[in-house]
Amino acid sequence: MLPQRARAMLRRLVPRQPLRLFQWQAACARGASVQRRTWASTIPRPLGPWGAVGNSPPVCRRSSSTPASGPEVALTQERYPVKRLPFSTPSEADLAAFERIIPGRVVTDTEVLAASNVDWLRTVRGCSRVLLRPRTSEEVAHILRYCHERNLAVNPQGGNTGMVGGSVPVFDEIILSTALMNQVISFHSVSGTLVCQAGCILEELSQYVEARGFVMPLDLGAKGSCHIGGNVATNAGGLRFLRYGSLHGTVLGLEVVLADGTVLNCLSTLRKDNTGYDLKQLFIGSEGTLGVITAVSIQCPPKPQAVNVAFLGCPGFAEVLQTFSTCKGLLGEILSAYEFMDAECMWLVRHHLHLTSPVQESPFYVLIETSGSRAEHDAEKLNDFLEQALRSGLVTDGTVATDQMKLKALWALRERISEALSRDGYVYKYDLSLPTDTLYDLVTDLRARLGSQAKRVVGYGHLGDGNLHLNVTSEDFSRSLLDALEPYVYEWTAGQRGSVSAEHGLGFKKKDALHYSKPPAALRLMQQLKASWTPRAS
Amino acid sequence: MLPQRARAMLRRLVPRQPLRLFQWQAACARGASVQRRTWASTIPRPLGPWGAVGNSPPVCRRSSSTPASGPEVALTQERYPVKRLPFSTPSEADLAAFERIIPGRVVTDTEVLAASNVDWLRTVRGCSRVLLRPRTSEEVAHILRYCHERNLAVNPQGGNTGMVGGSVPVFDEIILSTALMNQVISFHSVSGTLVCQAGCILEELSQYVEARGFVMPLDLGAKGSCHIGGNVATNAGGLRFLRYGSLHGTVLGLEVVLADGTVLNCLSTLRKDNTGYDLKQLFIGSEGTLGVITAVSIQCPPKPQAVNVAFLGCPGFAEVLQTFSTCKGLLGEILSAYEFMDAECMWLVRHHLHLTSPVQESPFYVLIETSGSRAEHDAEKLNDFLEQALRSGLVTDGTVATDQMKLKALWALRERISEALSRDGYVYKYDLSLPTDTLYDLVTDLRARLGSQAKRVVGYGHLGDGNLHLNVTSEDFSRSLLDALEPYVYEWTAGQRGSVSAEHGLGFKKKDALHYSKPPAALRLMQQLKASWTPRAS
Repeated sequence: MLPQRARAMLRRLVPRQPLRLFQWQAACARGASVQRRTWASTIPRPLGPWGAVGNSPPVCRRSSSTPASGPEVALTQERYPVKRLPFSTPSEADLAAFERIIPGRVVTDTEVLAASNVDWLRTVRGCSRVLLRPRTSEEVAHILRYCHERNLAVNPQGGNTGMVGGSVPVFDEIILSTALMNQVISFHSVSGTLVCQAGCILEELSQYVEARGFVMPLDLGAKGSCHIGGNVATNAGGLRFLRYGSLHGTVLGLEVVLADGTVLNCLSTLRKDNTGYDLKQLFIGSEGTLGVITAVSIQCPPKPQAVNVAFLGCPGFAEVLQTFSTCKGLLGEILSAYEFMDAECMWLVRHHLHLTSPVQESPFYVLIETSGSRAEHDAEKLNDFLEQALRSGLVTDGTVATDQMKLKALWALRERISEALSRDGYVYKYDLSLPTDTLYDLVTDLRARLGSQAKRVVGYGHLGDGNLHLNVTSEDFSRSLLDALEPYVYEWTAGQRGSVSAEHGLGFKKKDALHYSKPPAALRLMQQLKASWTPRAS
Repeated sequence: MLPQRARAMLRRLVPRQPLRLFQWQAACARGASVQRRTWASTIPRPLGPWGAVGNSPPVCRRSSSTPASGPEVALTQERYPVKRLPFSTPSEADLAAFERIIPGRVVTDTEVLAASNVDWLRTVRGCSRVLLRPRTSEEVAHILRYCHERNLAVNPQGGNTGMVGGSVPVFDEIILSTALMNQVISFHSVSGTLVCQAGCILEELSQYVEARGFVMPLDLGAKGSCHIGGNVATNAGGLRFLRYGSLHGTVLGLEVVLADGTVLNCLSTLRKDNTGYDLKQLFIGSEGTLGVITAVSIQCPPKPQAVNVAFLGCPGFAEVLQTFSTCKGLLGEILSAYEFMDAECMWLVRHHLHLTSPVQESPFYVLIETSGSRAEHDAEKLNDFLEQALRSGLVTDGTVATDQMKLKALWALRERISEALSRDGYVYKYDLSLPTDTLYDLVTDLRARLGSQAKRVVGYGHLGDGNLHLNVTSEDFSRSLLDALEPYVYEWTAGQRGSVSAEHGLGFKKKDALHYSKPPAALRLMQQLKASWTPRAS
């Protein structure tokens, strides 16, 4: 409960209509259509441009099946200048061999394949003809050993919620789904260490550990579909990064099956282990290009006793930045998220998803979350911050939630922007790390540069982590708009020493932009590593 | 300030004599003799047993110079069955070449070399005849390129405070000291991102960032000597691990010079960057075997507004564990350290360092630190915890400090155990990660097993991280005692699925124990990596 003083102030701030719930539960239940893809890439995929080796003609023809909704998505191999590497094509004998390894779980149904071949943003599409559903690491090892011997390309797939086209085949790669690898292996009720299979859905893991007094150290909009293995493979950041940090710090161990079928068991549950090179780190964020993550050991922090969310309107981006400095100082260790969105984002979620803004119209909005161990202490800190932010004019309007339903409703405004964007047309997505001071300049700059070429240019993201989600929409895919955006956005980012992929990874769409954020010596070492560990794909 | 209720309770608990300062400042000023080594290993050193390749005869003879104090330390090559790899021996022409690269900073003085050839535990000794002091990464690159071409072995050395004999030459490797690479490159006063050269001393960095409202995310007993580059190279854990986590999470970027002189600039200041493999992670904890870290970018958390330290006596190890559970629940996000030590440790610091225990004699002691943003909230949480711990008999005596001098005095009891041990005789050190529940069983077990063979068997460490420092002393080095300890301790640890090196690394002394904590597939990948990146040493 907020103290009296804060309650009075907030009543003054909040519009009189009751806070809507924004159909949160419905959104979660709808599955992939509201989720982000996070499992990524193909093991035998080279790090450099596609098809650098080999000249085999594309083996796919346009499929007659399309995913559940919307117009047919163009085949990746038809839209982009890619060439298939000289991998074998899966034969009937191969399917029979898979059937012996995982009886009854070799899927060739065209409906299922149609959905698994296309990304949820509906921007890239492969033409795989088989999807495999192993249940155990041994089965994954068996499959990969077989594919390695037969020179068959494999595309690991988790929840298929990625943003960069890395979770679906480019050509006819075999889809290796982790969907049935969804068992919790162990949970330590004192330390909070969770060990589970890679295909566990993040939201289900959250519920599992929350029932035991802990929380997952990561949370993201796609939680209802994304798999923990995919989260780790893509080094997902998300909404709790500010508080609990990177997966490089919270993942304690991994089990990985390498391209040749070797099982690498580094599934430690120890917080500290300085014996040799920390190999698991290489797989975190490698997007499935070095191996398939089959199990994860992760450190869960204790569940906060009190959570508050404040949703505030700010008159300008300078005030968004100053509000962040102020709340870091006054909220200290209980600050667990600092998100921002611009007025265009609010328009999108109102217009496409029929959500209601809980505050007066503002050029910018921030969402601040606190998580602490003592409700009255947290409320006092938050109250003092809000008073100061209001008094100094950093914030012009706001609302605070403490109960679960309202918290979720406020979070939905931020979390469902991506879904709203996908309803606005074709989306050009950029996920950039930039110095916070100049983070929004690129959005303003692009609006001027693109003019009427773009339908909408919006900016939102994890300001506390210096992470801008820049999104541009148009009615349909437009090559000229893409050319106006790239490499301009990448060069702008490189000019600020930023990252062209803060948390989404490279996948298919950003693979050629790697050199904007990494020097030639690093690229050489990555290529060397890839060549050494997966020689077939290099 | 603690509230009245807690102050009254603590007056009851604390012995009447005033709290002594335990000569903290003096200890810090004494330099290497009270420090831990953290910079480690030789670039061209193979991961496997020393001298697996080549049969050159040892090139060193017993030096006539000895380090500043104590009896002469046996040469490593005489005490251990090691063989020198077929590297060249530095010639006069080589020294002249180094002199051209770093004029006036090629050291051949026997006194300086004597100190740099021996570890501070005085257990291993090399016989290098030259120490180089570069000031810039370019100089390091130039030196390594030259050594690579001339096939000369190099031993990077930071503060020479490591615990596993990894910071000094085994034979006559050239010592590459980072001591003059001690400049802060940049500090961002809003984000707290520090970029500095590798040779900056941790304590000096702490003072630098504290003056600007931040703290270093790591702290350790050796802070007065250890270099940040060495901390990162050995993935130092230390006293703030519980709160701020591993360097894998807090290090944002590294600049590394590879064995062939290539400069790998991954000195990013971004919190998030998912472009390609996170190569810097491989160097964190690789102990200098893959390259020399020349600069570090690290995320510093805001400086807490209030710090409290409680030093408590516990009647048994079960109570130490229960006290930990209780304080995790009641202190929540402000808990920043939970350390324990046994009665033998207290005896050592009292006897050898003349420190005074602030609490009544107990079988175990715990040190609890809180760091928060609001003094009165923190005091209330701590007070409630202490009341509950006392009421339930988990704690039998205790004292609390809030002012800087007393805080340091209490910390000294824990931090100076290692120094006290080194005055007790020859020390066999084990730094293990174990399940917390059974963490102390090994100490009890070993006391029974060793009987009078050992002078003392003690246990202390970072209980909050499951990290036991197990130390055994004897009057002098004893082969039979070593045989009674190894592989017994490693097998015991492996039986618990623990780690044979939680935070000290492998260095020279634990290199052959790696397989107790890592499976064969991991060892193969490590060897492959090492062979690929430093082919001369593999």
